[in-house]
Amino acid sequence: MKQVAIILSGCGVFDGAEIHESVLTMLHLERLGARYQCFAPNVQQHHVINHLTGEEQDEQRNVLVEAARIARGEVADLATLDPSEFDALILPGGFGVAKNLSDFAFKGAQSSILATVKEQCQAFHQQSKPIAYLCIAPALIGHIHAKGTLATIGNDEATAQAVEALGASHINCGVSDIVVDDTHKVISTPAYMLAGSISEASAGIEKAVQKLIELA
Amino acid sequence: MKQVAIILSGCGVFDGAEIHESVLTMLHLERLGARYQCFAPNVQQHHVINHLTGEEQDEQRNVLVEAARIARGEVADLATLDPSEFDALILPGGFGVAKNLSDFAFKGAQSSILATVKEQCQAFHQQSKPIAYLCIAPALIGHIHAKGTLATIGNDEATAQAVEALGASHINCGVSDIVVDDTHKVISTPAYMLAGSISEASAGIEKAVQKLIELA
Repeated sequence: MKQVAIILSGCGVFDGAEIHESVLTMLHLERLGARYQCFAPNVQQHHVINHLTGEEQDEQRNVLVEAARIARGEVADLATLDPSEFDALILPGGFGVAKNLSDFAFKGAQSSILATVKEQCQAFHQQSKPIAYLCIAPALIGHIHAKGTLATIGNDEATAQAVEALGASHINCGVSDIVVDDTHKVISTPAYMLAGSISEASAGIEKAVQKLIELA
Repeated sequence: MKQVAIILSGCGVFDGAEIHESVLTMLHLERLGARYQCFAPNVQQHHVINHLTGEEQDEQRNVLVEAARIARGEVADLATLDPSEFDALILPGGFGVAKNLSDFAFKGAQSSILATVKEQCQAFHQQSKPIAYLCIAPALIGHIHAKGTLATIGNDEATAQAVEALGASHINCGVSDIVVDDTHKVISTPAYMLAGSISEASAGIEKAVQKLIELA
């Protein structure tokens, strides 16, 4: 049975991990016969967004503590992740990827990413283990993988340009499809970068998870 | 296409709506051809639990605002729900049901429930529209429906006794099964009261949603 690590970036699409994508990732991993363990960095969120109004709230929340909501308490500090214990890695999307794991939401082509995230992803890659990036998470690929690694964030031109400027090679992709870089064992799918509904998001995530397990 | 209202009770199993159950409800509704709209009461949470440590945090959060995280912003105040616009109603579980929608977590057989929740659920019932209660949500049934309405929270004896004391008729039920009261159009399933994994929770929720749409 394949063991898959999931990296979460908080809890909620506008300041953390996209909840539907995270839950669908867990569901499809289990349905396709894999086991999973969630991880998140023990850092403060960039900010807290009121998801009803879209406004910033004057408070602080911790990425690991909030991610525990999606994981029903079963989440570990990303710093403790040992890639040798897992067969594959997957990163759901949400603004948390672009605000907490990196500053892509603010700096685009000039963004940088959290050292722990870079180190852990590169360790999986060095052990020839596949990684799937969902939604906006492919914005991390240029920081982690070799120049020209294939990636998709759907078809948004400005975002795709920033992803390319960071070093990845962007390919437009439909919501229910995936882009696979077989050489680098990197998978990506647009999910809620394009999805208009949860079943649309589910279709692409299911394919990405299936390919991830296949390559593991 | 059936229109289904979902009542959320926050965001996170220990102080709000159970996230997996809420997302699986949305997924299965869509997959089975229904549309959904989320609602939540505009009230403060009973408390905030750090889902990593299980400890209470010294802060305040609002049920409607936090529920918006699960609903990707698309949630309305429960007070504005017009049952005549919907064909059915569903309540996912999580401690939010027993701490925010009611005080069942603290008072059990002596609990009471939020007036808005009672009124809205009874309005659906009076219009002969089916309601599905997941996980611990069947603890509300005694407050809303006729004495003896069939309900399940799985097989926990103490919880089942409290549910019975409130007026419902409890039937033990497996994790992937449902209990249906055809006369009152009330459906229940244990979900994470028993589920050891997300796919187990999914199986019972899928059946509950299927029956809900069938009765709508």
